[in-house]
Amino acid sequence: MSALPDPIAALISALNKLPGVGPRSAERIALHLVQTDSAVVKQLAEVMLHAREKIQFCATCGALTEKSPCSLCTDTRRDSSLICVVERAVDILSVERSGTYRGKFHVLGGNISPLDGVEPEDLRITELEKRLTCEPVKEIVIALSTDVEGDATSFYLAKRLARQGLKISRIAYGLPAGSGLEFADELTLSRALEGRREMTGE
Amino acid sequence: MSALPDPIAALISALNKLPGVGPRSAERIALHLVQTDSAVVKQLAEVMLHAREKIQFCATCGALTEKSPCSLCTDTRRDSSLICVVERAVDILSVERSGTYRGKFHVLGGNISPLDGVEPEDLRITELEKRLTCEPVKEIVIALSTDVEGDATSFYLAKRLARQGLKISRIAYGLPAGSGLEFADELTLSRALEGRREMTGE
Repeated sequence: MSALPDPIAALISALNKLPGVGPRSAERIALHLVQTDSAVVKQLAEVMLHAREKIQFCATCGALTEKSPCSLCTDTRRDSSLICVVERAVDILSVERSGTYRGKFHVLGGNISPLDGVEPEDLRITELEKRLTCEPVKEIVIALSTDVEGDATSFYLAKRLARQGLKISRIAYGLPAGSGLEFADELTLSRALEGRREMTGE
Repeated sequence: MSALPDPIAALISALNKLPGVGPRSAERIALHLVQTDSAVVKQLAEVMLHAREKIQFCATCGALTEKSPCSLCTDTRRDSSLICVVERAVDILSVERSGTYRGKFHVLGGNISPLDGVEPEDLRITELEKRLTCEPVKEIVIALSTDVEGDATSFYLAKRLARQGLKISRIAYGLPAGSGLEFADELTLSRALEGRREMTGE
């Protein structure tokens, strides 16, 4: 394409590698950037490098943090008798947004998936077991995805972590909030029915 | 949000300012970047700065280019009797992609829009008139948007540029390729009917 100078083509191709950025939006962003005040572009580049340089994984829970252990692990107002197990560091954010959980976290780093070559030893399960020996944990709340891999990993964890005095729970399957029955697939609906809760009418 | 370290929050906010990048995709890109190989992040930052530094507007046609005049203006294989007028530098790319145009370009920089404070003197019309005096132009192909502002600007240009021996045309309104009547609005359809072309059946 003779209409596109090389530096823009290179920028488009680099942006295109970012998650959720297709060729058209990469092009749109690139053309925006080369026409923006260069101080703004410089700042974006710096913020990007700074974030990459400063952010690491918390050695305890696996969250993204500036210093390890992270603020979630060291926050004494958090209930240390609860550990919520999530797949990826990003998932912590989703749970935090729900505003209903005040315990600790543990990032597993994936789900067991033999077909993709992900075995239990590739996940941060040993780290979780170590935490169980030195933290006053009473309940593990498994918040993995509700697909086949998430199911398998949850069952594996429930079996492997089982011990006297430790409750292991999994967040509920069901209809998403604000949704109707017509949008629910059969599996979701059957799980929602299984998980029905009594209404006391009080 | 205690779960998000400052450097990531800053990166999300910077990414969120890019066109087409909402808060959720900014978050997704940011979390991806801080977990990516730092050489890749560094390269993206460099490519971005390089593009911003190298790219300028062609003084003749207004295209984005590494050197002015640009390769479109200096390409002797292009038909210099034709100038296609587009709104933004990006639009050149769309016309080039169509693969049917082999003339020169002229970027207007916008459409006339008194409500948004865009008057004819804010556009690169004087520059276009200057080109008419020194280039062997026989036809101006107006390829502006088919909205009210594009219409107004096209009529304004047709009137202002009118002179002996210069043809002024506008690209056709009509149904988009691969689309059916049921997806066309009334205006598009009425323009498509007006612009109907005879089929010779040969």
